[in-house]
Amino acid sequence: MIIMRKGATQEEITNVVAEIKKHGLGTDVSTGEIRTVIGIIGDETRISATHLETFSGVKEVRLIETPYKLINREYSALFDGKTESRTINAGNVVIGTDRPVYMAGPCAIEDREQLMQIAAQVKAAGADILRGGVYKPRTSVHSFQGLGSDRKTAEEALTWLREAGDKYDMPVITEIRGESHVELVKEYADILQIGSRNMYDQDLLTAAAGTGKPILLKRHFGASIEEFLSFAEYIAASGNKDIILCERGIVPVGKGKSFTRYTLDLQAVPVVQKETYLPIVVDPSHAAGRRDLIMTMSMAAIASGASGLEIEVHYNAREARCDGQQMITPDELARLIEGCNQIHNTMAPFKNNDRAERCTN
Amino acid sequence: MIIMRKGATQEEITNVVAEIKKHGLGTDVSTGEIRTVIGIIGDETRISATHLETFSGVKEVRLIETPYKLINREYSALFDGKTESRTINAGNVVIGTDRPVYMAGPCAIEDREQLMQIAAQVKAAGADILRGGVYKPRTSVHSFQGLGSDRKTAEEALTWLREAGDKYDMPVITEIRGESHVELVKEYADILQIGSRNMYDQDLLTAAAGTGKPILLKRHFGASIEEFLSFAEYIAASGNKDIILCERGIVPVGKGKSFTRYTLDLQAVPVVQKETYLPIVVDPSHAAGRRDLIMTMSMAAIASGASGLEIEVHYNAREARCDGQQMITPDELARLIEGCNQIHNTMAPFKNNDRAERCTN
Amino acid sequence: MIIMRKGATQEEITNVVAEIKKHGLGTDVSTGEIRTVIGIIGDETRISATHLETFSGVKEVRLIETPYKLINREYSALFDGKTESRTINAGNVVIGTDRPVYMAGPCAIEDREQLMQIAAQVKAAGADILRGGVYKPRTSVHSFQGLGSDRKTAEEALTWLREAGDKYDMPVITEIRGESHVELVKEYADILQIGSRNMYDQDLLTAAAGTGKPILLKRHFGASIEEFLSFAEYIAASGNKDIILCERGIVPVGKGKSFTRYTLDLQAVPVVQKETYLPIVVDPSHAAGRRDLIMTMSMAAIASGASGLEIEVHYNAREARCDGQQMITPDELARLIEGCNQIHNTMAPFKNNDRAERCTN
Amino acid sequence: MIIMRKGATQEEITNVVAEIKKHGLGTDVSTGEIRTVIGIIGDETRISATHLETFSGVKEVRLIETPYKLINREYSALFDGKTESRTINAGNVVIGTDRPVYMAGPCAIEDREQLMQIAAQVKAAGADILRGGVYKPRTSVHSFQGLGSDRKTAEEALTWLREAGDKYDMPVITEIRGESHVELVKEYADILQIGSRNMYDQDLLTAAAGTGKPILLKRHFGASIEEFLSFAEYIAASGNKDIILCERGIVPVGKGKSFTRYTLDLQAVPVVQKETYLPIVVDPSHAAGRRDLIMTMSMAAIASGASGLEIEVHYNAREARCDGQQMITPDELARLIEGCNQIHNTMAPFKNNDRAERCTN
Repeated sequence: MIIMRKGATQEEITNVVAEIKKHGLGTDVSTGEIRTVIGIIGDETRISATHLETFSGVKEVRLIETPYKLINREYSALFDGKTESRTINAGNVVIGTDRPVYMAGPCAIEDREQLMQIAAQVKAAGADILRGGVYKPRTSVHSFQGLGSDRKTAEEALTWLREAGDKYDMPVITEIRGESHVELVKEYADILQIGSRNMYDQDLLTAAAGTGKPILLKRHFGASIEEFLSFAEYIAASGNKDIILCERGIVPVGKGKSFTRYTLDLQAVPVVQKETYLPIVVDPSHAAGRRDLIMTMSMAAIASGASGLEIEVHYNAREARCDGQQMITPDELARLIEGCNQIHNTMAPFKNNDRAERCTN
Repeated sequence: MIIMRKGATQEEITNVVAEIKKHGLGTDVSTGEIRTVIGIIGDETRISATHLETFSGVKEVRLIETPYKLINREYSALFDGKTESRTINAGNVVIGTDRPVYMAGPCAIEDREQLMQIAAQVKAAGADILRGGVYKPRTSVHSFQGLGSDRKTAEEALTWLREAGDKYDMPVITEIRGESHVELVKEYADILQIGSRNMYDQDLLTAAAGTGKPILLKRHFGASIEEFLSFAEYIAASGNKDIILCERGIVPVGKGKSFTRYTLDLQAVPVVQKETYLPIVVDPSHAAGRRDLIMTMSMAAIASGASGLEIEVHYNAREARCDGQQMITPDELARLIEGCNQIHNTMAPFKNNDRAERCTN
Repeated sequence: MIIMRKGATQEEITNVVAEIKKHGLGTDVSTGEIRTVIGIIGDETRISATHLETFSGVKEVRLIETPYKLINREYSALFDGKTESRTINAGNVVIGTDRPVYMAGPCAIEDREQLMQIAAQVKAAGADILRGGVYKPRTSVHSFQGLGSDRKTAEEALTWLREAGDKYDMPVITEIRGESHVELVKEYADILQIGSRNMYDQDLLTAAAGTGKPILLKRHFGASIEEFLSFAEYIAASGNKDIILCERGIVPVGKGKSFTRYTLDLQAVPVVQKETYLPIVVDPSHAAGRRDLIMTMSMAAIASGASGLEIEVHYNAREARCDGQQMITPDELARLIEGCNQIHNTMAPFKNNDRAERCTN
Repeated sequence: MIIMRKGATQEEITNVVAEIKKHGLGTDVSTGEIRTVIGIIGDETRISATHLETFSGVKEVRLIETPYKLINREYSALFDGKTESRTINAGNVVIGTDRPVYMAGPCAIEDREQLMQIAAQVKAAGADILRGGVYKPRTSVHSFQGLGSDRKTAEEALTWLREAGDKYDMPVITEIRGESHVELVKEYADILQIGSRNMYDQDLLTAAAGTGKPILLKRHFGASIEEFLSFAEYIAASGNKDIILCERGIVPVGKGKSFTRYTLDLQAVPVVQKETYLPIVVDPSHAAGRRDLIMTMSMAAIASGASGLEIEVHYNAREARCDGQQMITPDELARLIEGCNQIHNTMAPFKNNDRAERCTN
């Protein structure tokens, strides 16, 4: 990371960028109120810090020893003198403000009528963003893979999703599972979702980033927080910092029954908020895998400071072709949003208090 | 499990119990408002259900296919027709009611003055129960092991703990790490704590149960919830159902930094509450291992429905001989209790709603 | 799975296939010496078994309750009356015979000279197949990503790999990391490798399968064996059963140092061999992450019955731009192959003995 | 660790030891051929290195930053100038030499006849040491707990074990599960076994160490290797270095079926051998939990360099009251020992070669 002097000229900046590119590396130029900082994208060891410090306009070359630099709070602090969190716009909704955002809808889009009905219902219940899966990641090739398994039904399903979002005035989010989905989905969706199983798929992350759309990246169920942020960095390194992180549960420990599909790691919420300026939301539906925990864990997630929730909703969970056991009804969603908003309001004055100090041990 | 007919006579019950004992098995006789139920303790396969069903007064012999039967909600429902949670008395405090209970104090008792000062401070901050470690479980034999490492200082430390509890009108809780600690500690403590590393130590559990004191059992950091409840069953099988369960964090997943010592599994709270009638509390201090997360995660724990919290507190964390980086100050504790009580009140009406239904998928 | 009668006609088979396709499902038709069996690819619940059993020529419709059916030993046993392991041809090498196969080469191709020199050396040491990475999966976007990070250098590197393979008469294997790599790599490589981080990437698996080339699929470091085989099934479901499975280490357990990058799960070798007819090889280099364990663990892997090894080799590990600490020298490789072949010969008569019986508990 | 000068007098040594004890710390005095080294047992930070260096006869005070020092190869190298592995005598058997040692017998002792028969059979098959469980650690209080569940049958079972060992000239090993078992068991057994579930039980380790008997310590199924060695250090810190380490499998990763009870971590064998001078053996029976893998994994364990194996054997596994599905027959044991000895002989010349170099990356 090259920290330029206050008042460094555009020419000086251009010279440094050119020198870095000559070594086959990319750059991330951030101009803040105080100064410009140039981040190196790629293997920094290919260029000498001492050499770069001889360039005109360079104040200091600093090595950040972490696999995620561009999404790091400290990094943005350097050139802006502030450490504000990032807010992300998706249609008429802003994620990362002081108000929790609710994304809701069916696990999988099954047909137009199902989607339209659920869209109307989640809107009435207070949802901000409509979710609906077209390309479903599944452990078994013999399970229902979503309408995305055929190009024609994929596009139909995406059309319905757009139509439902427009009709009920909600931005829409849907998952991309492979690079080959990006071109089609970006025409219809406001937010591109990358699922847990694909978190390590750096080429998919890069392709998605290239659309310029906000990306919701779910933590892999076997990934540490450091790995999670390191792969989010792939998106930022492609020039797109509109990244919404999502905790959706990790693999349970031990032998014997865990009683839930995954373990919801709510400590990840404040930890991620301290490490990065990106917002983090929680998906309690996939973590629990059972509907009777969704209400409770949603409130706990909001109490932990999450910027929003992604919830699977169906008017008739028993009919759902996918994940029926973890869906809640629209009525339950309305109650959930009411409860979560109250928790958020209760928690707010205490939260600021806690975040002020960063543990240095 | 042998379900007796309504109105079965004491003689009929005695006959069944005698028959079971003849096979080298133990019994747990529960007489509720509706009927008496006899639980078999030990390997049920050693006795024939069909044979037992021929006994006078026996309505039905039912096999419960779970390693924990005595602490099971369904089991108590059978003879009482109700599924109420258990409340546990420790001195003047009741755990498991609708009011969260706060246990606070230093990680380790260091000297009389330190303990007295912290006791006064946590009392003033609103704590209900005083904690203080004498026998410290440590990964390294070369770390400070607590005053328990010597028999004489162990008893001194226990005397101070009792004195502090009496002076500030708080029941006291301290850890037993080996069978050889039970006799001494039971003379001083109101609640015996069994730590994470000892959860699998069935002989310690049995010895502790024999004191008749309430036992706080922490989940091992590598144990599934099924294992956790299976080892709690060892305590119940020794005739002591005054068991307080405690979630204190599990081993993080994945490669790379996790940023916390353990992963706090808050889903364990509602899951345990559905499986058993025993109360569950949360220890956010050991889970996080860093003080800047304690406030946030305490509120999230209360939102998840925990019956209380165990928090490490020290007036001068930097001086603490053990776990300094995760202790909070008495002032922070006061603020924490205020926040948690507000969250509890906000959450309460929504919680009942959620617990009514049990997912049957 | 539809089991046809002996002597069922082609027309009867075609009718059944057509009926299945009418329900939006795929088929896998296997004609063995005894009879034809039709596997359903996709969600079997969409078609009624009772209905299919009314079709002419159908003997029985059987539900296999496992997410992997096509690669299952039991499945092939049904129509062939035998359960032989599959052998896979790659150039002049056959994988899955009674002779272990050694794949060796650099972690990453760095330049033409480096690759040519190592190719000559591993050939001399006794290697069968040349490995060399072009597209490197990396946790950090700031680490060296391989020559694949640029389309032009990617193709150059692939050209060198082909040239080295041809010159030294070894088939070549290289990794594809995203769908967009498949078209290019299939022109140059004999075996397509899918790395640990991409195991869950079902679209990549499907795209790779479509080339008809043998696929080496590495187990994800957080995947159970059932998940591993379930994703291999995606390849088979695309009509390509030339799948080489590879165990390369899973995430270590517990807190504190593990002393290796991953935990090598050698039980996976006999387990996989009992579940499927596909060959499994072992990559000790990535599991250990340190060169001083490679020799020992290679011999252990062969003793566990592995069909081969994939080993990272470099003439000057300290110069290597990637994974230097786990590479061995060509001389060490020669010694390793000698030792492994001796272990293989020693183990062989005992192995057959063990495999005859399948534990049914 | 205090390194004394060559030729330091006994008085000088005594003075240093006294000073350390004054600070409430323990000492481990090792006098080798070259010099004496004094290890500090307990929290080193309580005493100043600079202060100790002023004492007469002290050459250097060195801080070893690892939770296990006394069992460390580097430590013994300091005063002996050599890094030889430790051999441990149990009756007429030596563990840790160049010859693998086989411990075999039933999971649980059921009655005198069963034990005598199996003892005769395993002796005939080539076993060196007889194993038999009296105190069985079980996840469920409702499972068979071994004859140890009653004091009278416990002592009977131990008498039979001693008798069988004497009759067939094999030292005997049995498990202690709680501190309260130590006094009784030490009268009968040659080696005290501490099982996986009790590895973290530091008071049990200390009590066992005090008997002076060799201790076989099994790795907890959720413990890292560093934790494993740190708890072995508790035994050494009590003055007993006759410790046999045992790898018996760790918790499987991921979702879905693992097909084995635990994951056998054979990399632990060479890793432990490099870190410590203590011998390590492998228990493939509990790791696999199924008999059809025992032969294969035993050979792999020997190829990885294990100093021996512990195997569960029963003449009629289906009758066994505990772990029937993982027992092998005496005939299978004979074949296993034959195969393992051949693998050991094949591996031997290659192993030395590998161990010479220690990776320094």
